[in-house]
Amino acid sequence: MDHGGGVLLGLFVIFVAAQIGAEIAQRLKLPGVVGEIAAGCVLGPSALGWVHGSEALDLLAEIGVVLLLFSVGLETKLEEMKRVGRSAFFVGVLGVVVPFVLGSLWAHGSGFEWAQSMFVAAAFVATSAGITARVLQELGVLQRQESRVILGAAVIDDVLAMLLLGIVTALQSGESLHVGQIALVLAESVGFIAVIVFLGTKVMQRQSHWLEAPINPLSPLTLALALCLGLAFLSTQFGLAAIIGAFLAGMIASETKQRETIEHQTQPLLAFLTPFFFVMTGSKVELAQLADSGTLLTLALITAIAIVSKLLGGFVGALSLGKRGALIVGVGMVPRGEVGVVIAALGLASGVFSPHTYALIVAMSLLTSVVTPPVLAMLFKAQARERLEAAEKPAE
Amino acid sequence: MDHGGGVLLGLFVIFVAAQIGAEIAQRLKLPGVVGEIAAGCVLGPSALGWVHGSEALDLLAEIGVVLLLFSVGLETKLEEMKRVGRSAFFVGVLGVVVPFVLGSLWAHGSGFEWAQSMFVAAAFVATSAGITARVLQELGVLQRQESRVILGAAVIDDVLAMLLLGIVTALQSGESLHVGQIALVLAESVGFIAVIVFLGTKVMQRQSHWLEAPINPLSPLTLALALCLGLAFLSTQFGLAAIIGAFLAGMIASETKQRETIEHQTQPLLAFLTPFFFVMTGSKVELAQLADSGTLLTLALITAIAIVSKLLGGFVGALSLGKRGALIVGVGMVPRGEVGVVIAALGLASGVFSPHTYALIVAMSLLTSVVTPPVLAMLFKAQARERLEAAEKPAE
Repeated sequence: MDHGGGVLLGLFVIFVAAQIGAEIAQRLKLPGVVGEIAAGCVLGPSALGWVHGSEALDLLAEIGVVLLLFSVGLETKLEEMKRVGRSAFFVGVLGVVVPFVLGSLWAHGSGFEWAQSMFVAAAFVATSAGITARVLQELGVLQRQESRVILGAAVIDDVLAMLLLGIVTALQSGESLHVGQIALVLAESVGFIAVIVFLGTKVMQRQSHWLEAPINPLSPLTLALALCLGLAFLSTQFGLAAIIGAFLAGMIASETKQRETIEHQTQPLLAFLTPFFFVMTGSKVELAQLADSGTLLTLALITAIAIVSKLLGGFVGALSLGKRGALIVGVGMVPRGEVGVVIAALGLASGVFSPHTYALIVAMSLLTSVVTPPVLAMLFKAQARERLEAAEKPAE
Repeated sequence: MDHGGGVLLGLFVIFVAAQIGAEIAQRLKLPGVVGEIAAGCVLGPSALGWVHGSEALDLLAEIGVVLLLFSVGLETKLEEMKRVGRSAFFVGVLGVVVPFVLGSLWAHGSGFEWAQSMFVAAAFVATSAGITARVLQELGVLQRQESRVILGAAVIDDVLAMLLLGIVTALQSGESLHVGQIALVLAESVGFIAVIVFLGTKVMQRQSHWLEAPINPLSPLTLALALCLGLAFLSTQFGLAAIIGAFLAGMIASETKQRETIEHQTQPLLAFLTPFFFVMTGSKVELAQLADSGTLLTLALITAIAIVSKLLGGFVGALSLGKRGALIVGVGMVPRGEVGVVIAALGLASGVFSPHTYALIVAMSLLTSVVTPPVLAMLFKAQARERLEAAEKPAE
């Protein structure tokens, strides 16, 4: 009776390709997420052309990454975040300033006007928390100090990137900038985060029996999911990414007595829905746009700038964790993922970017996302090995 | 960075409304699904007008009902289905023939040509397995003989309804009917079901270790979900509903050693996704189209025909289960749900139905869906009480 066959085929192909990609990646000792993004590249217009963005698939992808950040939030306690607040703040700020400055300089140097250069640079700025969060979760290192710094910095990064995008859009379109207005936007978004985190935590600690009140036996999960969707939406109303609200929802839900149950029940949802996010992210790149050596050289250059600038900002900001820790944090901030893609799409829509520049920035965003997970995994494993060796020494 | 706020708000509102609706229904001792459908009526164009069908929301709804039927299949073993095969066959056939005949007669009597009357009658025919399956699952009675007959009959019902719709569409548009072609379509769909069920069951019984082969610790679930999506798609290629394929996928997955784990892990997916199906189903009705007494009278009449004809067909077909059992089966076949809506939409699109007839048939489909769950719950509870009393008697 049903004629929705086409969409179901799309779901099936994306889901299976993600499983195959993740399996191959893991057999090659790479994080599974790399395989899922690669599967997206193969399915997308670059190779097979089977998958194109559609309202429905993009929504599934969005739900996938929202649930992912919610589950990462569930493993993150406010108390522990407070302890790394200082480092996270420096990493967040420097991780925005350095890429923005270097990005603007490169763009101006390669012929853009200053106003446009700053718009291009904005695409260099924002970290995609989704990619790193997934890697940290796959490696089981969300409890490490470095992971907390990365997650805290990602929240700050998103606030600053939002402000910056607002400013460069205004500059680009020739509107006048009101410092008061910018301060207000900043205050609103910071206020939103603070209220949610501090008030939400208190309420959850005291009232977690509310989650059991409904008749539905799965009500701790369904109410937590409602909270997740609600805060994800609210955060978009403050100019922030939906995943920031989802992360905060997870953080405050982690204060409830039902945390472990909710965490456990979220796993099947992640297993089903997050692959759509990573495959759809991978499917955005169009290799055909990049198929000449000059473009490839430019791509290599801007990817290098994107990686080095973020790494530098993160590294310097996190030096209080020691050099190895600072390096992990710096690498963790590198992926631009879907956030770079979104800004590039804004640039294309407003006419600031040519389709060629758009394709370049999308490819850069994906390259930073594919390069990071293996390096991050390597660094965490090396750290674990060293600690193990250090622990064994006295016993000899 | 993300501007998908509007869709997230829609998700939040639908999800929360479903929880509230289900909670109220359950406090009134009604099945939760009634509350979810009612929530859809309130959110839809009839009252608040907050929710309109969109490609994205309809996909989520479709995934929800596909997963629901998959999980129902997980609780259904082929061996037990075979035992009720005969009854299920009679229920399926009579449950199509009686509503079709009575529906055609009413439509012709109220002024439609014969060809059009049969198209109208086709909308009286198909049972929505989703509504009944959800009620059976909520009541925890999927293992009862009556439930198995209903599910088996729903599969046969879908095959016959598909054939019938093909035939009446051809008649309506004046095409000539080829008996050979109809027989081929029938043979293909029955062949598809038979191959999946018998071959699939054998493969699953022997090779369930395949589900553990991938590195992903959740691979039994992800591979089962891939099977579900794949068969849901395939069944649409044989003209059947996606949920039939999903049900078959669940049935063959129920033969694996990992059945219980998969069943357990499917629960959070159902909790998150099925509310979208029931709310979207409820949101299809437009009460404004029905707001005069003549129309309401007609609605009452066609709803009565739809209920009585299906009840009669199911009851007579299942008489071998005794009168009470046959009554349960008859009632279980009554809901038309989204299937009636789909056929009404086809009729509207092809010009056979006026918007007024369309609204009537949609309202009839929903009424049959809202009326059934409480009655079904009551009958099962009465049956349980009688059995308990019968079991206690010898002890007195």
